[in-house]
Amino acid sequence: MLSKKQISEEFQKIQSEICGSLEALENSARFSVENWERPQGGGGLTRVIQNGDIFEKGGVNFSEVQGLLPAKIVKALGVADDRFFATGVSIVIHPKHPSHPIIHMNIRYFELQDGTFWFGGGIDLTPIYIEQDEAKFFHQQLKNTCDQYDPEAYPKFKDWADDYFFNQHRNETRGIGGIFFDRLAHDKQKTFDFVCQVGRTFAPTYLSILQNKTLNAVTPDQKQWQSIRRSRYVEFNLVYDKGTKFGLETNGRIESILMSMPPHASWVYDHQPLKGTPETSTLELLKKGINWI
Amino acid sequence: MLSKKQISEEFQKIQSEICGSLEALENSARFSVENWERPQGGGGLTRVIQNGDIFEKGGVNFSEVQGLLPAKIVKALGVADDRFFATGVSIVIHPKHPSHPIIHMNIRYFELQDGTFWFGGGIDLTPIYIEQDEAKFFHQQLKNTCDQYDPEAYPKFKDWADDYFFNQHRNETRGIGGIFFDRLAHDKQKTFDFVCQVGRTFAPTYLSILQNKTLNAVTPDQKQWQSIRRSRYVEFNLVYDKGTKFGLETNGRIESILMSMPPHASWVYDHQPLKGTPETSTLELLKKGINWI
Repeated sequence: MLSKKQISEEFQKIQSEICGSLEALENSARFSVENWERPQGGGGLTRVIQNGDIFEKGGVNFSEVQGLLPAKIVKALGVADDRFFATGVSIVIHPKHPSHPIIHMNIRYFELQDGTFWFGGGIDLTPIYIEQDEAKFFHQQLKNTCDQYDPEAYPKFKDWADDYFFNQHRNETRGIGGIFFDRLAHDKQKTFDFVCQVGRTFAPTYLSILQNKTLNAVTPDQKQWQSIRRSRYVEFNLVYDKGTKFGLETNGRIESILMSMPPHASWVYDHQPLKGTPETSTLELLKKGINWI
Repeated sequence: MLSKKQISEEFQKIQSEICGSLEALENSARFSVENWERPQGGGGLTRVIQNGDIFEKGGVNFSEVQGLLPAKIVKALGVADDRFFATGVSIVIHPKHPSHPIIHMNIRYFELQDGTFWFGGGIDLTPIYIEQDEAKFFHQQLKNTCDQYDPEAYPKFKDWADDYFFNQHRNETRGIGGIFFDRLAHDKQKTFDFVCQVGRTFAPTYLSILQNKTLNAVTPDQKQWQSIRRSRYVEFNLVYDKGTKFGLETNGRIESILMSMPPHASWVYDHQPLKGTPETSTLELLKKGINWI
């Protein structure tokens, strides 16, 4: 029987593999390493890279925490026990060049002392400029990983991501989605293997996207557009993201929670790109239900 | 008896006076004027200034809306009627120079068809670098306005602002506070006069602060510090601000709601200014309960 220790050790291994893969691409920056402890139990290892040639800001966080859930959260989760254990890896990368998309990955395991457990996670991509080929490749990689687990998983988790990564107040998706899943509570070993496979799909998929690009000199307009898209990322994370909200409400380690925030973001009043531009094409594709494959 | 029409007309006049006063200081930008309608009833006039020599981004919004409150809001307000009327002026100014503080002002009137009514509002200041003389002057101006209304108002509304403009997750106030008040429901004419006086305290106080500064050339570190402080402003507005939340949840006009967002903001992982710097002195003063006068 799979133990908490085995799960968190494998998650930490995945964190380490990912940081190694990303560093191999980056010449001028390295991941910092910060061990932190949670006063109420457990802790984590936050790894952050800043001001690289490729990665302007990226965070890869591992945590393993335990303790008692606040009553509010016990109620929201609809569970019968408040003694919890949670471990996970969470990543957000803000690359420097506007041709490189923002990416997010999360894998997590949650367990109560009464034996209740579940896995959750996902990967989603937020291009500054959406390109159909890249979107197709990205979704195909996720589908390949899902198909090995369950042929019905990809369409289900893809729709879930569309619904989850949605800025309601702007009526637009955060990016081109990906997969999102939560409370997978059956067949522990098989689901654990799938979740680890999601974690290991991240680096090769993202590196392939980054390496496939010819990078042109960036114009001020493209840089501004990148800052505007990043501001929508901020809006999503602060207004809707459950992990962020949970962290803020439970006095989590603030720098680890908000390491997902972009290095720079801009809000321009009523910004409307011109018709026929790549910016407008991108806006037109920020919709739920697009079959990218 | 004071009518809704009289109140909203006076508020609109205050909006217009304020825009005139701010424009008189600004050489290279003018306020845009945008009339908008709310499909469910009412509308507003949004005035925005961008990329000025003094004002990098500023919004002065007037609105007068009516209709039916969502059940959730009726419950949250603890009222017995859902047919509402609301009018107000809301301002956020992000000046360009880091020596110039961000400022926010709001005055509002709310009425239900059953006759229930109240006023709310306030002014608060968010310096990038806190200066004690400036803070004292600012609070003294607010106290003068409050004292004319009620000698007990200033201390009460000052504490209210400390509690309201607080980033819980960072354990710091947004700035040096000011005054905040809500649900003032007695002595309608007298309270209306006070609220208008708050509106008319804004421009002379802020202009005096802006004009009192010798502006030095800005270093990259000062510019970065400004962007970091602005990111905390974003965090407050998206995570805690009731007006913003209300707007997002009731499908308000998104560009008018988020005109309060700064033109640029930065999130640097675990940014810690050095001891003895003006940045550190500023952080040390972002606390509740300071008697600035």
